[in-house]
Amino acid sequence: MVTRYLTLTSLEQARSIMKESFPDLDRFEKIPIMQAIGRVIAKPVYAKYTVPEVNTSAMDGIAVRSRDTVGAADQTPVTIDHFARVNTGNIVPPEFDTVIMIEDTWEAGDRFQIHKSAAPWQHIRPAGEDIRENRLVLPRGHIIRAFDIGALATYGITHVEVRAIQVGIIPTGSELVPLGVRPGPGQVVESNTIMAEVFLSSMGAHCTRFPIVPDDPKLITDALRLAIRSNDLVIISAGSSAGTRDFTAEVISSLGELLFHGVAVKPGKPVMLGRIEGKPVLGLPGYPLAAQTILREFAAPLLESWGFAPASRYPVRVKLSQPLNSDLGFDVFVPVFVGRIESTLWGIPHHRGHGVQMATVKANGYTRIPASLEGYEAESELDVLLTTDPGRIERTLILTGSLDPAIEELANLVHDEGLFVHASNVGNSGALLALKRNACHAAPMDLPALSLLPESRFLMQHLPAQDIAFVHIATIEQGIASRNGLDFEDLFKVRFINTRKDLPTRMVFDALLSSRGVESSRIDGYLHEVNGPQAVAAAIRNGFADAGVCTSGVAETYGLQFVPIANEDYELAMKREMLDDPRICTLVSLIKSPTYKTKLEKTGGYDCSQTGLLRSLSENNTLEEFHPALLLLDIKSS
Amino acid sequence: MVTRYLTLTSLEQARSIMKESFPDLDRFEKIPIMQAIGRVIAKPVYAKYTVPEVNTSAMDGIAVRSRDTVGAADQTPVTIDHFARVNTGNIVPPEFDTVIMIEDTWEAGDRFQIHKSAAPWQHIRPAGEDIRENRLVLPRGHIIRAFDIGALATYGITHVEVRAIQVGIIPTGSELVPLGVRPGPGQVVESNTIMAEVFLSSMGAHCTRFPIVPDDPKLITDALRLAIRSNDLVIISAGSSAGTRDFTAEVISSLGELLFHGVAVKPGKPVMLGRIEGKPVLGLPGYPLAAQTILREFAAPLLESWGFAPASRYPVRVKLSQPLNSDLGFDVFVPVFVGRIESTLWGIPHHRGHGVQMATVKANGYTRIPASLEGYEAESELDVLLTTDPGRIERTLILTGSLDPAIEELANLVHDEGLFVHASNVGNSGALLALKRNACHAAPMDLPALSLLPESRFLMQHLPAQDIAFVHIATIEQGIASRNGLDFEDLFKVRFINTRKDLPTRMVFDALLSSRGVESSRIDGYLHEVNGPQAVAAAIRNGFADAGVCTSGVAETYGLQFVPIANEDYELAMKREMLDDPRICTLVSLIKSPTYKTKLEKTGGYDCSQTGLLRSLSENNTLEEFHPALLLLDIKSS
Repeated sequence: MVTRYLTLTSLEQARSIMKESFPDLDRFEKIPIMQAIGRVIAKPVYAKYTVPEVNTSAMDGIAVRSRDTVGAADQTPVTIDHFARVNTGNIVPPEFDTVIMIEDTWEAGDRFQIHKSAAPWQHIRPAGEDIRENRLVLPRGHIIRAFDIGALATYGITHVEVRAIQVGIIPTGSELVPLGVRPGPGQVVESNTIMAEVFLSSMGAHCTRFPIVPDDPKLITDALRLAIRSNDLVIISAGSSAGTRDFTAEVISSLGELLFHGVAVKPGKPVMLGRIEGKPVLGLPGYPLAAQTILREFAAPLLESWGFAPASRYPVRVKLSQPLNSDLGFDVFVPVFVGRIESTLWGIPHHRGHGVQMATVKANGYTRIPASLEGYEAESELDVLLTTDPGRIERTLILTGSLDPAIEELANLVHDEGLFVHASNVGNSGALLALKRNACHAAPMDLPALSLLPESRFLMQHLPAQDIAFVHIATIEQGIASRNGLDFEDLFKVRFINTRKDLPTRMVFDALLSSRGVESSRIDGYLHEVNGPQAVAAAIRNGFADAGVCTSGVAETYGLQFVPIANEDYELAMKREMLDDPRICTLVSLIKSPTYKTKLEKTGGYDCSQTGLLRSLSENNTLEEFHPALLLLDIKSS
Repeated sequence: MVTRYLTLTSLEQARSIMKESFPDLDRFEKIPIMQAIGRVIAKPVYAKYTVPEVNTSAMDGIAVRSRDTVGAADQTPVTIDHFARVNTGNIVPPEFDTVIMIEDTWEAGDRFQIHKSAAPWQHIRPAGEDIRENRLVLPRGHIIRAFDIGALATYGITHVEVRAIQVGIIPTGSELVPLGVRPGPGQVVESNTIMAEVFLSSMGAHCTRFPIVPDDPKLITDALRLAIRSNDLVIISAGSSAGTRDFTAEVISSLGELLFHGVAVKPGKPVMLGRIEGKPVLGLPGYPLAAQTILREFAAPLLESWGFAPASRYPVRVKLSQPLNSDLGFDVFVPVFVGRIESTLWGIPHHRGHGVQMATVKANGYTRIPASLEGYEAESELDVLLTTDPGRIERTLILTGSLDPAIEELANLVHDEGLFVHASNVGNSGALLALKRNACHAAPMDLPALSLLPESRFLMQHLPAQDIAFVHIATIEQGIASRNGLDFEDLFKVRFINTRKDLPTRMVFDALLSSRGVESSRIDGYLHEVNGPQAVAAAIRNGFADAGVCTSGVAETYGLQFVPIANEDYELAMKREMLDDPRICTLVSLIKSPTYKTKLEKTGGYDCSQTGLLRSLSENNTLEEFHPALLLLDIKSS
């Protein structure tokens, strides 16, 4: 069965329908102030009494009548015999109108001498200085912060009435298993309603999650009937099969009416909204990133239109690190990582596969590409809404290039130094582009041994090599992985799996073919490209292919046989001036640390004899002396 | 007893001492992912398995071998007899390497015909597309967001190890009463430790609040001993008396060592830090704003240096709406409200009385004036860290001028329209300055009747009156308030209380004196100025004065007798072009609404016969015709 969306509603139109169909929700609850952080005031809060209730002293000293102090000076001290000794916070008795600090008095028996007259109301906190009885403390709509709660306590307020909502969340899908159960092949953990519950609870919603409902219209109908009865809003998560989604639309129509189904938004196109017994029912698509988008762009705005506070969204203007394509006619949401290199805020867009939850995990923000655009060129400016503390941006190192688990270990270690790492996997060519654009702090690169690669020279034509420094991370073995220990000669008989052209794995393999004079068309699967050595190993283990090239560490992780064919240097390349940045110094010293080497060696597959070696071109050495593999990159040495 | 700080430590130095004395805290706890929002990862999280574990279909269709499709075209359709029917999310069996969408197939008996060849890996979600087994999901230091929790669930992770800390919080002070008890005169609700608990809990701390300890060194010693035993950090809140603070320092010294006492920071100068049994003890000053500053500038950075995540702080650059004085040599923190008028982000600094918690409640951010500066001129640029969602700024109307509870009711009503009001009480002169600087959307003003005020003309010389529109809020009666019904003639026999020169209350009184030829020096208390009619009424009710001028509504609220002397118009003044702003239109229509009038009339003291009347100067009427009271303001009508 195929779902066809003949008439997609636009995002704006869909949100208007939603808000106009469900204009108000009038539920609130009374809660103790200690539990009120982040909640939204539903009924205005007024002070129970005046604070301070009477005039109090703002200093330690004596309370006196200002008229008794007139004329006091160094030459003409005045002795005060009508006074009250007061400490900070003490009541100033009504007969006195000023306070003299104890430092400005001289004791004279049981009286005090002063050398300066005192103006009325000096050092007095007048009654009502902070607030007066029955005056507004928090208006409706105020989002309660920690320090507001201190003020509420001071003003005698123990409970507040805040906005409340009951949300029922129904997971549907026969392929789903609950959290804690290991999914079999073709099954997935039911995570969308977990996400919905956590997300909406953080806005102050009370959520009830229902057990997983299999793809059966009768059971979905029962669950929906039950959920509508006791909730203000029902969210039904459709599972990932198109059939399930069709049942949901059918069931909503049979119990009430479907307001829209299919919106010109990506991810999230299959979203639907219905009304049953006057209450909204929102149908989430099954792909996690689609579900996220619909929660953020539909569920949150609906609650917000009812007065709830969404998570803070900090807008920043960024420069795009690479081109970003879009789908004309669709509002497209893309996870973005925002990082700073010198004065530039870069936006690094993430993979948009609807099932790739790591894209959101690694991103610290997102952007919306309007339906009227086909995308953006690299280095265009666009707006991103941040999902993390912007303060972290200044402490995050951007590593862009060929990723290896060795970088993950670094990400864990730098945290002890108060730093963070954002790593994106774009291969060696992406590394060079990022270095050239100055869009990364450092670029991890796989540099294969020169001997294997007589022909393939590429890129880096415009990057002055003298400005680049390399820090050696580890030496890694490349080789042929298989379930049964295949060698080069066996490759013509089996299904091979390849990687992207810009990856060292591929470079090594191409060089090998070339050095042995083999036509690539003789190899079955040469055109099947996957994204990196791990994907190669996974495909072999799962039987989708029989052999491929990957690193020894990856082959070991995936329990594969391994026949080595070449070494490569895994290095961190960076502009030489980056070495002046204290954060980079920290990173480099961590790479040099015994802790890091021990970690890598324990992981397996890494030769750490050169780890931490820092090299850069100087006037005294040639490119070849410096690093033979660099020739590959066709660096012009000026 | 007086605390003298002979050697104040600088803020930076104090924070360095703190971080160097307590470099690490190695406590963590394992919690279910559903409870992990906002917490910080202490141990890196790795995927339990590869997702997807096998190749799955990204579409509804048929899985085939790509080599079987070669040559298919409209003219040369190919019939596929080896295939598997797959839905989105289904496993693609290992023998197949591509998926054809069901829309691109034609059923032919139990086989399918296709008109186009299929590339390998088309419409297949390759195994490991999202993440691979044992790869890093969340590094140490990652702050968990709602959507991260969805990813954790998908990757088979049910629990995470997050940073944890036990904080003991001790309130001290004999003048304190616990939350829920009405404080007597000179007492205050113990709110600082409530604030500390809510604030630190929001960072992920487990807090234990101790019962209030009276000012007795023996009892403080006992409490501190107990707290140190079971906590990683102890916060001792000093109460508001200087004596208490001295006991705290003494007690810390006797049980361990005092690392610093007295820091060049305002508010918060008396802060102290000690070490007992290797653990930090932070002494909070008693004034709420001082306690807030120390929690934010010491407690939070200490936790942050231990890897905890602070509340997000979003930096904005603002233009200062008025001059801001500081104390040279002190780092001074000031609550600021940030609002936008057209393209300018204005920063409106708030009252800095240490006890004025409303300043923080009304502010949406704060600024730090460095110790090296004496302050800033009006319209200087400075940095503010926001404490609320920046999105609210665009929906907040800034009302600057003479505040009356009538404005509070408006703040509650506009919330139904998705708007917010920020109101600051700076009198009529502040209103005019804000209008002139274009630093407010509208300026509430008290405009007393002309007849009473022959002399007093002030301000507004440079504001072109033609550009100003007025919306009438209410007519308010001014008069003499007293406990026993005093009249004008009685004022020479009693203690009077006055208000600031720029307030209408004062203008009315001065005009009255002038019209009757009375010297102000004949009035006892004429020089005692308090901040507005409520303060006048409070002072009279509490016996600090016998009579003063205020509005009938205020006199009624405070249970005082009232003898009317003049009417005033309470109006909302604004630049005429503001009437084109839809938010202002909303505000004006709310003022005109029966709901608002009913509210005001129910409150008492308001005559609403002209409420909602919109007036502005035109070429056809003179200033006097327009509003006689405007003459007061000496507007140049050209």
